Amino acid sequence: MVNRASLARDLQQVRTQSPIVHNITNYVAMSFNANALLALGASPIMAHAREEMEDMVSISGALVINIGTLDAQWIESMVEAGRAMRALNRPIILDPVGSGATPLRTATCHRIIEECHPTIIRGNGSEIMSLVDSSVLSKGVDSSVGSDMAVEAAKALARESGAVVVISGETDYITDGDRVETISNGSTMMTSVTAMGCTASCVVGAFAAINANPFEASLHAMATMGVAGEHAAAISKGSGSLQVNFLDELYNLTPDTLAQCVRG
Amino acid sequence: MVNRASLARDLQQVRTQSPIVHNITNYVAMSFNANALLALGASPIMAHAREEMEDMVSISGALVINIGTLDAQWIESMVEAGRAMRALNRPIILDPVGSGATPLRTATCHRIIEECHPTIIRGNGSEIMSLVDSSVLSKGVDSSVGSDMAVEAAKALARESGAVVVISGETDYITDGDRVETISNGSTMMTSVTAMGCTASCVVGAFAAINANPFEASLHAMATMGVAGEHAAAISKGSGSLQVNFLDELYNLTPDTLAQCVRG
Amino acid sequence: MVNRASLARDLQQVRTQSPIVHNITNYVAMSFNANALLALGASPIMAHAREEMEDMVSISGALVINIGTLDAQWIESMVEAGRAMRALNRPIILDPVGSGATPLRTATCHRIIEECHPTIIRGNGSEIMSLVDSSVLSKGVDSSVGSDMAVEAAKALARESGAVVVISGETDYITDGDRVETISNGSTMMTSVTAMGCTASCVVGAFAAINANPFEASLHAMATMGVAGEHAAAISKGSGSLQVNFLDELYNLTPDTLAQCVRG
Repeated sequence: MVNRASLARDLQQVRTQSPIVHNITNYVAMSFNANALLALGASPIMAHAREEMEDMVSISGALVINIGTLDAQWIESMVEAGRAMRALNRPIILDPVGSGATPLRTATCHRIIEECHPTIIRGNGSEIMSLVDSSVLSKGVDSSVGSDMAVEAAKALARESGAVVVISGETDYITDGDRVETISNGSTMMTSVTAMGCTASCVVGAFAAINANPFEASLHAMATMGVAGEHAAAISKGSGSLQVNFLDELYNLTPDTLAQCVRG
Repeated sequence: MVNRASLARDLQQVRTQSPIVHNITNYVAMSFNANALLALGASPIMAHAREEMEDMVSISGALVINIGTLDAQWIESMVEAGRAMRALNRPIILDPVGSGATPLRTATCHRIIEECHPTIIRGNGSEIMSLVDSSVLSKGVDSSVGSDMAVEAAKALARESGAVVVISGETDYITDGDRVETISNGSTMMTSVTAMGCTASCVVGAFAAINANPFEASLHAMATMGVAGEHAAAISKGSGSLQVNFLDELYNLTPDTLAQCVRG
Repeated sequence: MVNRASLARDLQQVRTQSPIVHNITNYVAMSFNANALLALGASPIMAHAREEMEDMVSISGALVINIGTLDAQWIESMVEAGRAMRALNRPIILDPVGSGATPLRTATCHRIIEECHPTIIRGNGSEIMSLVDSSVLSKGVDSSVGSDMAVEAAKALARESGAVVVISGETDYITDGDRVETISNGSTMMTSVTAMGCTASCVVGAFAAINANPFEASLHAMATMGVAGEHAAAISKGSGSLQVNFLDELYNLTPDTLAQCVRG
């Protein structure tokens, strides 16, 4: 169960502190993600040159690494930034976009997990499952139930990596390998807007920057995404207006409304 | 004349099959194009790392190569992906953005045509004309008539390359070098939204993925673009709302409405 | 004081001449910037490959260099394009995004200023201050007043570099090192839309392409940004709709309305 008072307090903290969130993310998501962080009240940085990774990280409250349009040069910048952030002991969020679709993606995620030790990993069910050894997965998992299998994979990945793992979907699952909490806000229409998952990872970054407990930060971020998305979908004609209304809802969302509307 | 029953059937097929369309496209278009493919019901992939081109192509129903923000590294990925897709005998769409404006662009298009044999080439009149030898063009062409000259160039390019060639504009022309069909939906306001042409190429990709006849696929895609754009323009105050409304119209367009509203 | 007749005339000139503005800009801003230039009536080019910089520059009426997502390769293209544009004696606009945040950014701006001699430099107060030697800045500057200090820095940078310098903010300042003019349109809500400053630099580019006086061009561009932004904010629920309405306002803005609504 999400604690409504803590949830409201954290949204207020993001608004008040306006944490800097450094994103090394994909080209498709960049503009929408920067706009979502601004609407939320955070301060986005988008930068990827190796020469400035350490400098950028030093001024940031959280680092979001998203492999959506990775290539050899960007991977090196991701790892460099991740290591520098780890040395500062500040939160790192990994978004393993498309992990499992190609060996390059899966291998890059494993490398980032090993070398940077992300604080939080957020993906969809199949991305999370791709990061867990199938032999581990098959033990004690009822593989006939899709979502249960993904949740078991998330728990295994959390235990293995030490990260909080978030699966977003119709129901969002947040686990530290032991506890599992859920958020059931949102709308299926959100899947028709590109980079909505990437945006969730950025929002997780903003909350992780102001709450030292990554489990709570993840839960509160997913609640915020879900409530804003659900309210936006209720007034949208289609996927185009949904993206616009989502930013407006995020911009206007009050801590009280968030606490009242969350289901989790 | 477009066959209305086939047109309606193809839109339904895109919605039902949700084909994966792999785009190697320009930075300006990426987000809008991914959103347009999602609104249409297709599944976009945006990826460009050489190391994963073959893997990405192997899971895709169509490949769209758009040279809008090309550079040396991306060109190699485009060629690599194109050759791999050709080997699989699946449809390749080339969008020759800015061909003719610089030698780099024209030469890159010629290289992609020679090495990858695109199934469909979609551009505006001047881009298509830049790809045809001017001596070929001057034969039997009434050069005093701009659009006629572009159509003759499209026919020559189609015959030379073996691709279906699409010229988009106030009237869209689709030719296989012999037949020429037209679509006259759309709105001039669409030219004030960046990457609208690139979006047309992606929509062509989605239809080519579900219809093995590239001439029909191109015709049906341009009809879909034109009807959605025309309906969106009718309710838009300016170019900002047009982009949003275009995505909403694409999201809500039914096969029946499409078949009723097409002019071609 | 802005001359209202000249202001109206320049907007009309942008609409009539539709100047080509070549942008080497950041990934976050590209789509919004291209859409803003189209809404204004200009013709955007986004291109960065070194191999085509000279060709692109030769067909452009202005060049906008924006270092928002710089890296080693892009910096070389920026310098190459800037030198070629300087040789043609056409206007170059530098947007020093994040200058001062990392040594790479500050050094890159200094290099572009020295090697390309930009015609106009547009940034926020802290970016402009980062480009001026602090010892220069401390002379004769009342450092206790933030905005005054930024304006003094702008004047110093203008004198040193030979460029017109623009600081955008709640009040925009335009200086050639001697004169200082202001525009006080706009809305604070504009700071919640990413790349709004980058868009201002592009609009400056469009006006500089049609008015050989860079001081006037800058003043007229900032007036246009401010009026369109202010009108858009008045009808927007949040930052999402503001971006859409801003493009619509820019698209529909008449020279008369602009001249009537400017405050400066």
